[in-house]
Amino acid sequence: MKLRPFTLYLLPVLVIAISSSFQVRAANDQRFKTSSPFATALQTLQKQIGYTFKSIGLLRRAMTHSSFSEESNRALSILGGYVIDTSVSLRLLNKDIDISPKDLNRRVSETSNVEISCAVDGMHLGLQKVVRVSPKTNSTVPAVVCGAFRAIFGAIAVDTGKCDDAGDVFLRVHSAGALVVLLDVDDENLVIMLTLHAFFKSLMVYGSIET
Amino acid sequence: MKLRPFTLYLLPVLVIAISSSFQVRAANDQRFKTSSPFATALQTLQKQIGYTFKSIGLLRRAMTHSSFSEESNRALSILGGYVIDTSVSLRLLNKDIDISPKDLNRRVSETSNVEISCAVDGMHLGLQKVVRVSPKTNSTVPAVVCGAFRAIFGAIAVDTGKCDDAGDVFLRVHSAGALVVLLDVDDENLVIMLTLHAFFKSLMVYGSIET
Repeated sequence: MKLRPFTLYLLPVLVIAISSSFQVRAANDQRFKTSSPFATALQTLQKQIGYTFKSIGLLRRAMTHSSFSEESNRALSILGGYVIDTSVSLRLLNKDIDISPKDLNRRVSETSNVEISCAVDGMHLGLQKVVRVSPKTNSTVPAVVCGAFRAIFGAIAVDTGKCDDAGDVFLRVHSAGALVVLLDVDDENLVIMLTLHAFFKSLMVYGSIET
Repeated sequence: MKLRPFTLYLLPVLVIAISSSFQVRAANDQRFKTSSPFATALQTLQKQIGYTFKSIGLLRRAMTHSSFSEESNRALSILGGYVIDTSVSLRLLNKDIDISPKDLNRRVSETSNVEISCAVDGMHLGLQKVVRVSPKTNSTVPAVVCGAFRAIFGAIAVDTGKCDDAGDVFLRVHSAGALVVLLDVDDENLVIMLTLHAFFKSLMVYGSIET
């Protein structure tokens, strides 16, 4: 087919128009994927805890209260609680094989306590602003925040298939939370930096580095 | 120095005599190390569970009731209990992320139940004959057997520094125990073979192989 000159001029215009359309569509998809405040919050949360999910659906589920959906964080929260108990007691026994059962139980109870520890750690991560609840549910209630917090570590365990990976992230986050309290920190970026710092701190508190 | 012929004949005799002495001494040391029924039982136990300790002292501690010594298995038992709960719930969630909290709790409770599950598993390993107790203590009491059983997995976790390694051994042993019940097995060697078989069975029960 012999193309007329005018048609030839049209071709690049068409090409540009079509490719621009694809780019706009891609950009729209991108904006659709990331424009949700919830999706953005999940990205931030992964940076805060220093762990990137292979299956983001697990973190989505961890941040979903049972009032919002049947696909909720309750089972992950149960697993996360066990991960935390195991991680804390393993670290303590590694540090001191002669720790008394009484002290061991006390330390594990302190860490798993909903109001004093669990919900506090969750608040430091701002989970009360992330977790999806029904309009009738108050997301700042300790049980809701704690459930979401524990579910994070259940989700990591399922994502990696490993209890130890989830436990390591918990110890890091938990130690960072302690620093946040100490320094009265609000800045999100500073919380991320403190998380890195806390990784080393956790080695001192629970691990083998002598203080 | 010029050796007389007679001396030359003596030399090999001396060499043989000295080396035999070393061999006997080594054999004696070996016998001293392994002649204790308790030490022998620990070696057998490691074969039964399919795990060899780097620090045998941990298994010794796991097989020591608090009535026998202050250096007992109580703290390891606490950790072992958490390892078991974590391992069971992680496997179940890996198999079915939508498992209900109610079913998850039920399955974990069944596995951790002292009389129905834990002490039964311990009896299959013959722990009532291994665990050291004071003369006044009955080693066949479920709480004693269960404590020793859980302590094994606490000990493995400390030995490896890993919750997952201990959890894997538990799932294997627990599944083998189920087979022992089914087949009414007493033979120790057959128990060891069944443990290997159960490794694959545990993949079906808790893992990703479709039945």
